[in-house]
Amino acid sequence: MKSFDRSSFFPIKKKFNSNDIVSLIHNYVQKFNIFESFQINELSSNLIFRNNSIFFLDKNVRYEYSLKKDILIITNDYDFCKKKDCSNYIIVNNLQKCYQIILNKIYFHEDSITFNDEFNFINNSYISKFSKIDSSSKIGNGCTIGRGVIIGKNCIIKNNVVIKNSILSDDIIISDNSTLGSTGFGFDLSNLGSKNLNPQLGIVYIDDGVYIGSNCSIDRAKIDCTYIGKNSMLDNLIHIAHNVIIGNNACIAGQVGIAGSTNLGDNIIIGGQAGISGHLTIGNNVKIGAKSGVIKNINDNMVVAGFPATNIKDWKKSVILNRKKNV
Amino acid sequence: MKSFDRSSFFPIKKKFNSNDIVSLIHNYVQKFNIFESFQINELSSNLIFRNNSIFFLDKNVRYEYSLKKDILIITNDYDFCKKKDCSNYIIVNNLQKCYQIILNKIYFHEDSITFNDEFNFINNSYISKFSKIDSSSKIGNGCTIGRGVIIGKNCIIKNNVVIKNSILSDDIIISDNSTLGSTGFGFDLSNLGSKNLNPQLGIVYIDDGVYIGSNCSIDRAKIDCTYIGKNSMLDNLIHIAHNVIIGNNACIAGQVGIAGSTNLGDNIIIGGQAGISGHLTIGNNVKIGAKSGVIKNINDNMVVAGFPATNIKDWKKSVILNRKKNV
Amino acid sequence: MKSFDRSSFFPIKKKFNSNDIVSLIHNYVQKFNIFESFQINELSSNLIFRNNSIFFLDKNVRYEYSLKKDILIITNDYDFCKKKDCSNYIIVNNLQKCYQIILNKIYFHEDSITFNDEFNFINNSYISKFSKIDSSSKIGNGCTIGRGVIIGKNCIIKNNVVIKNSILSDDIIISDNSTLGSTGFGFDLSNLGSKNLNPQLGIVYIDDGVYIGSNCSIDRAKIDCTYIGKNSMLDNLIHIAHNVIIGNNACIAGQVGIAGSTNLGDNIIIGGQAGISGHLTIGNNVKIGAKSGVIKNINDNMVVAGFPATNIKDWKKSVILNRKKNV
Repeated sequence: MKSFDRSSFFPIKKKFNSNDIVSLIHNYVQKFNIFESFQINELSSNLIFRNNSIFFLDKNVRYEYSLKKDILIITNDYDFCKKKDCSNYIIVNNLQKCYQIILNKIYFHEDSITFNDEFNFINNSYISKFSKIDSSSKIGNGCTIGRGVIIGKNCIIKNNVVIKNSILSDDIIISDNSTLGSTGFGFDLSNLGSKNLNPQLGIVYIDDGVYIGSNCSIDRAKIDCTYIGKNSMLDNLIHIAHNVIIGNNACIAGQVGIAGSTNLGDNIIIGGQAGISGHLTIGNNVKIGAKSGVIKNINDNMVVAGFPATNIKDWKKSVILNRKKNV
Repeated sequence: MKSFDRSSFFPIKKKFNSNDIVSLIHNYVQKFNIFESFQINELSSNLIFRNNSIFFLDKNVRYEYSLKKDILIITNDYDFCKKKDCSNYIIVNNLQKCYQIILNKIYFHEDSITFNDEFNFINNSYISKFSKIDSSSKIGNGCTIGRGVIIGKNCIIKNNVVIKNSILSDDIIISDNSTLGSTGFGFDLSNLGSKNLNPQLGIVYIDDGVYIGSNCSIDRAKIDCTYIGKNSMLDNLIHIAHNVIIGNNACIAGQVGIAGSTNLGDNIIIGGQAGISGHLTIGNNVKIGAKSGVIKNINDNMVVAGFPATNIKDWKKSVILNRKKNV
Repeated sequence: MKSFDRSSFFPIKKKFNSNDIVSLIHNYVQKFNIFESFQINELSSNLIFRNNSIFFLDKNVRYEYSLKKDILIITNDYDFCKKKDCSNYIIVNNLQKCYQIILNKIYFHEDSITFNDEFNFINNSYISKFSKIDSSSKIGNGCTIGRGVIIGKNCIIKNNVVIKNSILSDDIIISDNSTLGSTGFGFDLSNLGSKNLNPQLGIVYIDDGVYIGSNCSIDRAKIDCTYIGKNSMLDNLIHIAHNVIIGNNACIAGQVGIAGSTNLGDNIIIGGQAGISGHLTIGNNVKIGAKSGVIKNINDNMVVAGFPATNIKDWKKSVILNRKKNV
């Protein structure tokens, strides 16, 4: 997982100390213990631990590293805290609500009403004063390049492209009318409405040599990176949801959609209009037929098709059987 | 159904009297009776009756209110006129052609060659002089906000968004590269070509707290409103066709498409890449699985999946049966 | 197939003589014979032969006209050259690589880092100094009209539309946020990455009276034209890949995708979210049901549905049979 400077994208509105947090969410607190006093300036996730951070831990999420002392935990699960021997925790009865309240207090982000960006108009595009674009890269007309964005060498950003909350490495092409780094579709189903979006404080990271077609939409991650690996090729009208990770050398045809937090290996080939559900793991060298609907994990080297997607041989058999019955 | 001032979006080109109409379409008239003389300044639909209006009534459309005296009717069905005892009618042999001819004479609209709008360049976006945007709302770069558009309080319109022929209430977020209020896909299949588009003289109405993702397309209605209810959440690359009505608290995942005139209840959940045919009624609290194709009405509280979409239990059974046969 | 002046879109970087070509690709050459000396200034394809051209012939591609003397051939197949009695040929071991190297030397194109275009800002849009737009046509805000583009009479280009490498005839409407003429998704699967895109040196040709909805993406051809025939109507969020040919009077609903090099006849109707594989031939008057996946050629007048798409009667039968088994 690539690291990045969160505050260059999402400026800190107000600095909080670990002791201040309980009062922000007192309506939802069931039990707490804040043993240490430290300034909070980061967020942890189940993928990356960061110091001086808040870690919102859902009890359903597998947790992959040992807690260190200087982390504040917010969870529903007291037993877990005891077991992990963490010294700072707040047990709450509504994790998503607390996530919203606390992060809206700490960070400016683009779905709060205050935009915090200033633009220069350079060669027919709006370039944030707080972005960094290598001089070897070219940007077409009518683009917006937002706060914190970094664009490396020899990139080509075509026309009317919107890039926000993203880091682009070298030799990347983004075609016309595509959107990178917009808000992930994250919220609590029992509490809808634009005001209840979960703050999306991660970014999009596009690695060397990636090609992205026109009218695509790639959402930024909630906390870490939506990532597209080296030399991957994406066709037009593709939807990549938040937290998706795509390995190197992917080839993804038009109108494919990949739902949130799915993790794809290297050398993946996906046919047009296929869809992949969220929170899945797709192995290396997997081929997914056009119009497939993938709803389960797929092992390395598999070739799948159909909906629900299965081994392509089984799918072909079932197609033939269906035809025979019709005779 | 929300009301709106049609002429603020579609300026009146020329005022016609009920007595003038027959001459405009004389090639198509079979029989007529214009008993009263009145100025025509509105359009009626099978959902909303308006005074001093023209009502183009297709004989296949169910008709839900009593005709009043001051309405001019154009239809294929003489018996109907007699039965309803309407005093002003014109019977024609090509309803769509007459609709086109008459409305192109009465109204300016964006698919006739003359655009009737003037724009100010404000904070990097093109804002119609004839739009009304509350000062608490923010608009990003490269947007076009067209004639007649009303945007309420605390809305966030991101970058390169096009909003035309639309009313947005309060607390709405529209993400980058989305299009609201473009032309509905309406015409006579036997008479194609851009010149034969049916004038689309309705609007898009977005209610409080709605979130719309990036690269979406929401067409305006033919006569009334394409409507999205309070606190509904739409992901990216979604297609909402003309006259669609979506209730409150919908949650619609990426790349969903809803065809024209379909009516969805409250609290709908739709999975990614699902499609819903036109002219259907989908009840309240319905859940539609990802990649489903809905081609029939669905009752309240149903959970459906597959294509054609059926009860999700039946769909799961059929998936399992298909697998067994393959063994 | 429509003809066009390639160099008005893709300026010639350097003029090469037939004798110079071998040295550019010497690493890949197996055998060659250049009998005549002539300046190369065009490209041939299996659809159109052009004089003074290079013809990259894949041995799998059927070849439909006799070779003339002044053509340079590059292929893997020596026997073929002998049989056709062509006097100028180069036999190579990597056709796609040679295609890339040679054409990147001869032409500027938009996926090489140097953009070769200059824009005027006219009525809120960026119009290339090297484009030609009839004065009767209207262009909305925030559009980019690129080098070489020709737009005929009475066209309406709405807002934030990107048109590059395209010729539009008369009476055409292109709705908001659509992209015409972007790069076709062409490359060698064994050699991915933005640097290895095959140069796409063809155009998009849109014929009289075509309507294209919002947020669509239509890629330019590799060598010839992606073509949309007269009075065809395309809804929103549609993906048309490179080299696709669509006949007259097509009616294509929202979110349809058509993969590369597929050829559709006249009077086609395609339902929403349907997909058509690449390199297929679809006859005249064919109807394709919504959400179908077409993976085989379809004869004239057929009505198909399902995935894989079959005769609609068979599809309906299989749907009914599947339901019965569930009882």
